[in-house]
Amino acid sequence: MKLTILGCHSATPRVNSHPTAQYLEIKNHHFLIDCGEGTQVQLRKYGVKFSKIKYIFISHLHGDHFFGLVGLISTFRLLNRETELHIYGPKGIKEVITLQLKLSNSWTHYPLYFHELTATGSELIFEDDKVEVHTIPLEHRIYTNGFLFKEKLGERKLNISAIKNYKEIEICDYQNLKIGRDFKLENGTIIKNKDLTLDPPAPKSYAFCSDTSYLPAIVPIIKEATCLYHETTFLKDKVALATTTKHSTAEQAAKIALQANVQQLIIGHYSGRYKNIEVFKTEAQEIFKNTHLAETGKVFEIN
Amino acid sequence: MKLTILGCHSATPRVNSHPTAQYLEIKNHHFLIDCGEGTQVQLRKYGVKFSKIKYIFISHLHGDHFFGLVGLISTFRLLNRETELHIYGPKGIKEVITLQLKLSNSWTHYPLYFHELTATGSELIFEDDKVEVHTIPLEHRIYTNGFLFKEKLGERKLNISAIKNYKEIEICDYQNLKIGRDFKLENGTIIKNKDLTLDPPAPKSYAFCSDTSYLPAIVPIIKEATCLYHETTFLKDKVALATTTKHSTAEQAAKIALQANVQQLIIGHYSGRYKNIEVFKTEAQEIFKNTHLAETGKVFEIN
Repeated sequence: MKLTILGCHSATPRVNSHPTAQYLEIKNHHFLIDCGEGTQVQLRKYGVKFSKIKYIFISHLHGDHFFGLVGLISTFRLLNRETELHIYGPKGIKEVITLQLKLSNSWTHYPLYFHELTATGSELIFEDDKVEVHTIPLEHRIYTNGFLFKEKLGERKLNISAIKNYKEIEICDYQNLKIGRDFKLENGTIIKNKDLTLDPPAPKSYAFCSDTSYLPAIVPIIKEATCLYHETTFLKDKVALATTTKHSTAEQAAKIALQANVQQLIIGHYSGRYKNIEVFKTEAQEIFKNTHLAETGKVFEIN
Repeated sequence: MKLTILGCHSATPRVNSHPTAQYLEIKNHHFLIDCGEGTQVQLRKYGVKFSKIKYIFISHLHGDHFFGLVGLISTFRLLNRETELHIYGPKGIKEVITLQLKLSNSWTHYPLYFHELTATGSELIFEDDKVEVHTIPLEHRIYTNGFLFKEKLGERKLNISAIKNYKEIEICDYQNLKIGRDFKLENGTIIKNKDLTLDPPAPKSYAFCSDTSYLPAIVPIIKEATCLYHETTFLKDKVALATTTKHSTAEQAAKIALQANVQQLIIGHYSGRYKNIEVFKTEAQEIFKNTHLAETGKVFEIN
């Protein structure tokens, strides 16, 4: 799993501060998460092939997470995209995008599907044989969801040296072994699957949580995640402001990471008042050591 | 009059190709013309003080002229703007902006006025004691206007050496002279205003024309303009494509400049297919010598 930070700053875009957007590569899927103004330029800058993106997840309809979406959809059209595109986001997202396409008389030639979210509890919104995506209901000034991206448990790995002890087991039997079946020898003896295969790699998961108040209610949803991204708009000396604006401090993000027992924490969505973002890491690491700063263009290998 | 090019490329924004936006300083007004995605970052990059912008003119609702507007309006709010803002643009602009502000629950605290345009003939849309703005109806795939910015004729200049011949003329009389009145001496003799004052500088004008087919019908509106910006999406070898997409070639832009007898032509809105924009200037200058290329960040003094 590979995560590219396209933007990690809050509120207004500036020359070197791009609003939230992330590109997640997971099991051959290429997901875009949030799409602040200028995201399409960031995608170009970091060499992302536009045609690979088939699913876009929008946490909420504040501009710094969403104002780049209509431009990206329009650019896909100008590039003669034919592949379908699925947008997951809060109710209203379809109306505002389609209104703009109507006013510009620029309907997409490719199939565009909106999956509007309204649930207040966590729900499964995407699933195929490799990946699941669940919402993480967050608490912000408007309806907001984080997203939990989970790999599914893969097939079992063949233990070739063990298999070689049984001449009766042929290549055509391998698929049954991979899906967990035991093997029956001609003499009727059952060889247990676990004696012929190895456990598959543990599935990895990535939890994206932006924007939100400090919200321990999300802990059961993101429990044991391989990697958690949690917003840290402020430092703890501005906790009152964080509470009013329904954002989190670096300390609060770290507390969530600790409670959820995640392996790694990435923080971002820094307020423009902080010129040096290292202070966010320092504050978070007092609570949760394995904390990393989101930085524009940074790539995280999530293993 | 000073014009700063914030972006001058067509269609999709790229790392070094910004969509249309221009900043016009004229008689202490600070006008923004068009507002493609990323315009707010360009304004910061070129040191424009956001609070000075009180009037924004949008030619049409294609994304490369308009998708940056909602972000700019939102940023003004985040910066605690109090000054009113006026938006001039095609009908529909109010609905799409207000829908986005509603969905993000981010109403502006400052007064925001929309002046929606529907006329098919040229109309006066802004006027004060210094400046007039008229629409220039253009021909594009959707309803589009260019804008003609005209200085008004200023007050007459005092001819101090002539005035000094008449001891009776005091400083308190100067304002009457500036507005063109004659002066009556105590002996009843009338001194003609033209013998006491000089003509004011000729008013300057700037005509912005993007996007449009080749349209000689605009010539009477932009006649004798000090400066004309005319789009040149293509070169003349792509005139068929220009016709289909309702754009202009460099040659066509130059023909319009020649017919309108403008003093200076600026061209832009280059298609992404051209890596070297010098070819646009070469083609236009065959018809109209005083042609200049719009380039991102370039400043034109219009005198």
